[in-house]
Amino acid sequence: MKNFTFANPVKIIFGKGTIKEIAKEIPAEQRIMILYGGGSIKKNGVYDQVTKALEHHVWFEFSGIEANPHYETCREAVAAIRGHQVDFLLAVGGGSVIDAVKFIAAAARYEGDPWDFLTGKSRINRAMPFGTVLTLPATGSEMNKGFVISKAEIQEKLAANSPLTYPKFSILDPETTYTLPERQTANGIIDTFVHVTEQYLTFNNHALLQDYFAEAILKVLVEEGPRVFDHPADYNIRANLMWASTWGLNDWIGQGVTTDWATHMIGHELTAFFGIDHGQSLAIVLPGVMNVMRKEKEEKILQMGKNIFHLEKGTTDQRIDQTIASVENFFKSLGVKTKLSDYSVNEAGIQKVVNRFKERDWALGEHENITYGVVAEILGERK
Amino acid sequence: MKNFTFANPVKIIFGKGTIKEIAKEIPAEQRIMILYGGGSIKKNGVYDQVTKALEHHVWFEFSGIEANPHYETCREAVAAIRGHQVDFLLAVGGGSVIDAVKFIAAAARYEGDPWDFLTGKSRINRAMPFGTVLTLPATGSEMNKGFVISKAEIQEKLAANSPLTYPKFSILDPETTYTLPERQTANGIIDTFVHVTEQYLTFNNHALLQDYFAEAILKVLVEEGPRVFDHPADYNIRANLMWASTWGLNDWIGQGVTTDWATHMIGHELTAFFGIDHGQSLAIVLPGVMNVMRKEKEEKILQMGKNIFHLEKGTTDQRIDQTIASVENFFKSLGVKTKLSDYSVNEAGIQKVVNRFKERDWALGEHENITYGVVAEILGERK
Repeated sequence: MKNFTFANPVKIIFGKGTIKEIAKEIPAEQRIMILYGGGSIKKNGVYDQVTKALEHHVWFEFSGIEANPHYETCREAVAAIRGHQVDFLLAVGGGSVIDAVKFIAAAARYEGDPWDFLTGKSRINRAMPFGTVLTLPATGSEMNKGFVISKAEIQEKLAANSPLTYPKFSILDPETTYTLPERQTANGIIDTFVHVTEQYLTFNNHALLQDYFAEAILKVLVEEGPRVFDHPADYNIRANLMWASTWGLNDWIGQGVTTDWATHMIGHELTAFFGIDHGQSLAIVLPGVMNVMRKEKEEKILQMGKNIFHLEKGTTDQRIDQTIASVENFFKSLGVKTKLSDYSVNEAGIQKVVNRFKERDWALGEHENITYGVVAEILGERK
Repeated sequence: MKNFTFANPVKIIFGKGTIKEIAKEIPAEQRIMILYGGGSIKKNGVYDQVTKALEHHVWFEFSGIEANPHYETCREAVAAIRGHQVDFLLAVGGGSVIDAVKFIAAAARYEGDPWDFLTGKSRINRAMPFGTVLTLPATGSEMNKGFVISKAEIQEKLAANSPLTYPKFSILDPETTYTLPERQTANGIIDTFVHVTEQYLTFNNHALLQDYFAEAILKVLVEEGPRVFDHPADYNIRANLMWASTWGLNDWIGQGVTTDWATHMIGHELTAFFGIDHGQSLAIVLPGVMNVMRKEKEEKILQMGKNIFHLEKGTTDQRIDQTIASVENFFKSLGVKTKLSDYSVNEAGIQKVVNRFKERDWALGEHENITYGVVAEILGERK
């Protein structure tokens, strides 16, 4: 096991009817900005619950935060926050809204161009306090300090984090997820699945507890994921998926082990160039990574095959192939396709992505050996 | 899954050579009291590492905190802390020392009799900040807010907790555990095992992730526990056991589920009356609880039998018996006995314990149906 230093201070308020708790979590005299996305929270009753809970607070609202939140939109939010002299931010939505609010919380207390936080030119030294009401389990953003922001004009999607961008609290009410579109539910399950594999599917770190915790999350997804579509309002299925999703990326299972993140980094580019949903992009990239990196990841792929998919027969290569097929079949059971050709991206499109990795001279993965040439293999047609 | 609200803010500093990090974690101007037990830290080099790390701080020391720390000893520590105008406490040891320091941290900022915190007469409203250097994995105290204190004169052992008694940081260096006596290593593994079963072995709460996390911890103990005695200086075994122990009682796996704690409550009395080690007491009580409460716990005992001990054959009662036998055999594989008669406690002794539960009119367990009569059955000879 590797050395690590870690604390995760986020207060989780989990369960039915918990949105009303926000009133107690935000001091009465603080001026609040509620930030949300395209308005689904007005249809599913969450907006009403939030505004009812805050009836004795002073609050404003900012809507229109898009999926893969744009730098440009976040700058508008910062202007509104400054204009209204807001003290506390409340993100209501999924990972995109929460990620945006983390960035906004830091940007609102920064004099320079906050894109500097994404490029690494500047560190976050101050940030506004914020809480979240999660409505789409997927990114784990509700219990971590990371965020991903896109700059539309240059088709860039970059990540940053700071100890100052942890939510003060996060409300997780599984009932808010009953009416999610199937596509978003599926994307969220895949995002969680791949968060876990990025921290688990590397090599043997002799970190048994982390391995078994990772497998615990994967088992919940594999068991409950395919069931949710026939039972969208089953509280326990939704609760198990929501809680598993938070643990996929609250950074505990990644402590003491080597992590990968190549699938996410490549997936981000598919989203930036072709507008493929984040979850969909991961379902394309992960099988490719497992296939191309089969030697490096051999021991862990076999462990995953055995402990998650009960695969114990055949040669090493056969079991690896079966495990990759099991992962693809799991994604397909959620209604999500697993090939780039399914999204009409042709050879020229792949070349654009590969060129970007070439320009950046990135070497990804737990061994830092996934360079642009390997990315081309990963994105190429699988036999 | 049940609703819950929870945060665990403890900063974990895990790994080889991490004791030196305490210098960075405690502000330079703060006056420190180092508190420890019987002096084993002077033999294994931990004392030297701690005092070397604090060479630029002002520090004092208080030693002699015993197993099942005494109220009386803690009062002496409070007097020393006040005398030296100390700002920060550093617990160096196992759960007894850490529990004592939690109590001392609160007692030092309280004008009344701090036993009030244990009896529930008074709440903790202030406490000194403290950190820990863990040298004996067992209680999880390094990452929770609870503590158990004994009052020798009345043979009482009571528990309390407060959000103010979380450590600011905990150092977990597995190398400090290489020289632990086998008995303490074994007791720690059993304590962890039972912490997990208290939160898992109840009834079906439809909380899949919590179940699988609990099973993850149990699997680590069952796999690594018996190996440690032949490999006392194997870093990965010690690291896995140490980290599993912290997760056994950092309170995350108990969120959203009904918990039991009867085994601990009964075990505490065996320690209070007969001086049986805490871990040993649990190894006696848990099989009895599983046997007597087999109907109430049926579904979870069968799940545990299947997922931890691979027991899938036979009638329900046979599988329950096999699971109990597997737990007993696991304890015995650690060199720990599982019957009260092994400790020369006779019928009159059992009656003393039963009478205490009768006096207190306690009803323990997840169904609150373990009254004194059931305690008598649990402590009685098993066929």
